[in-house]
Amino acid sequence: MSLVVVGSVAYDGVETPHGRVERMLGGAATYISLAASYFTKTRLVGIVGDDFAAEDTELLAGRGIDLEGLERTAGKTFFWAGKYTDDMNDRVTLTTDLNVFADFNPKLPASYRDQPYLMLGNIQPGLQRSVRAQMKNPRLAGGDTMNLWIDIAREELLATIREWDFLLINDGEARMLSGESNLRKAAGKILGMGPHTLVIKRGEYGAMLFRGDSYFVVPGYLLEDVFDPTGAGDCFAGGFIGYLAEQGFDLSANHIGRGDLSRAVIYGSVMGSFCCEKFGVERFRSLTRAEIDARFEEFRAFTSF
Amino acid sequence: MSLVVVGSVAYDGVETPHGRVERMLGGAATYISLAASYFTKTRLVGIVGDDFAAEDTELLAGRGIDLEGLERTAGKTFFWAGKYTDDMNDRVTLTTDLNVFADFNPKLPASYRDQPYLMLGNIQPGLQRSVRAQMKNPRLAGGDTMNLWIDIAREELLATIREWDFLLINDGEARMLSGESNLRKAAGKILGMGPHTLVIKRGEYGAMLFRGDSYFVVPGYLLEDVFDPTGAGDCFAGGFIGYLAEQGFDLSANHIGRGDLSRAVIYGSVMGSFCCEKFGVERFRSLTRAEIDARFEEFRAFTSF
Repeated sequence: MSLVVVGSVAYDGVETPHGRVERMLGGAATYISLAASYFTKTRLVGIVGDDFAAEDTELLAGRGIDLEGLERTAGKTFFWAGKYTDDMNDRVTLTTDLNVFADFNPKLPASYRDQPYLMLGNIQPGLQRSVRAQMKNPRLAGGDTMNLWIDIAREELLATIREWDFLLINDGEARMLSGESNLRKAAGKILGMGPHTLVIKRGEYGAMLFRGDSYFVVPGYLLEDVFDPTGAGDCFAGGFIGYLAEQGFDLSANHIGRGDLSRAVIYGSVMGSFCCEKFGVERFRSLTRAEIDARFEEFRAFTSF
Repeated sequence: MSLVVVGSVAYDGVETPHGRVERMLGGAATYISLAASYFTKTRLVGIVGDDFAAEDTELLAGRGIDLEGLERTAGKTFFWAGKYTDDMNDRVTLTTDLNVFADFNPKLPASYRDQPYLMLGNIQPGLQRSVRAQMKNPRLAGGDTMNLWIDIAREELLATIREWDFLLINDGEARMLSGESNLRKAAGKILGMGPHTLVIKRGEYGAMLFRGDSYFVVPGYLLEDVFDPTGAGDCFAGGFIGYLAEQGFDLSANHIGRGDLSRAVIYGSVMGSFCCEKFGVERFRSLTRAEIDARFEEFRAFTSF
């Protein structure tokens, strides 16, 4: 079942203890789409400048991603650069050049509007809301946000997520949005804001899913080397929604499974872990569905008792 | 099967965001023994002063803990006081009065020496080594340590743990002992130091067990209120070794189960979570084995997929 992904497409400059790359393909919508493409037909909505390289278009198209919604305009593509701390748990932004992304005003191609699944990457909440309004009647719509919007556009963000089925944020954002330091209490408050399903990403510590009175928790995969965590949270999102779309899952059905939702969190974790194994999107040049499914089984092996 | 527990017995003064207690029963051996007592006959080796209250002796004895190894001497019992930060992830030590504990030189009663299970709480590594030497031929012996000994008594610590079956430490200590920031690499190095089984406690994030090339990871239990984390790591140890002793498990058998070892980590996690629900040892005044087994099943429910 087809998935629409909306968000940034960018070039990134990244420095980690394992090395440095001056300029490489990045952006939330890029990572989400690449990860989701292993599970379902994916349609990307974003904006790039005339410097966007043919080889990057080919990488996306080569994964079967529909690019009708990728607007090309005069100017430069969004550029972000950052440097990670030695333990990789924090990063400093060195450069943010919005470029053509400053005028991003997503318009969905007609063929996108009746697709059943929608994943909104982190962009200004008003834009996310406008995209949601353009979709006819999705089975499952949700997205990500960030501390900036919780801080400076709280009311607009609340109006936006009120219409979502799921919200997918990290632990710091969950605490900030709810005003609760305890994550179980934070989840309870956030589930009162609209989304009936909440996924909280905890970086190296894994992820949690809350729905009604039920919850599911998975620890993070133990990588021996984290080369570059950039995009890991977005790849989690792509694996999560991609798997649900593949299954044709309808989250409005009033149950949380030991079933599809939990397995979607595992596939999200799997995709996030692969993302960290190489710089940028490099891992997706060779990654196969068989590797993904093998790591899914690894999760089962190291968590079951 | 009977377990010998060695370590501090103390009075603690604790302040958390939920309140403050001036003086209450504490100490590693106290928490380990109380937790283990739900699973197996437990024998405590420690030292207290003549101020040790009858009601505290009664609490321990009431849980069936053998106190022949609890030495009583003139002077005051070890006293520690600390204050937790608002998020409970850190604490500041306000007072450490070793008192009679400064002269602790554990001597095992004759009846303790041929018991099959030994858990060494965090004390000076030379003392731990002396206790290990007093045991005849335990099926399973291991213990805990702390950053202080890794720092100031590294060689003595290495000689001590070389003779252990298992080492049970927190993530910061594992990084410090191994010199590796990545926990999977850290575990590999530590398993080369003697213990064939390593348990790494991660506080609110759960725990990991490493043995050979295999590992098991469990996320932490999501408590709505952490009243007082004091003793949680020791209760984890008590649940872990207590369950293995109850099962009559022999860790020298060359396998890691999806079996007993993983379940021992869950029981450790269960006991650590109960410990945090009230101040000090209060939770153990009412806790039942039925509650413990029910929470074990909760772990299964929120982690299985």
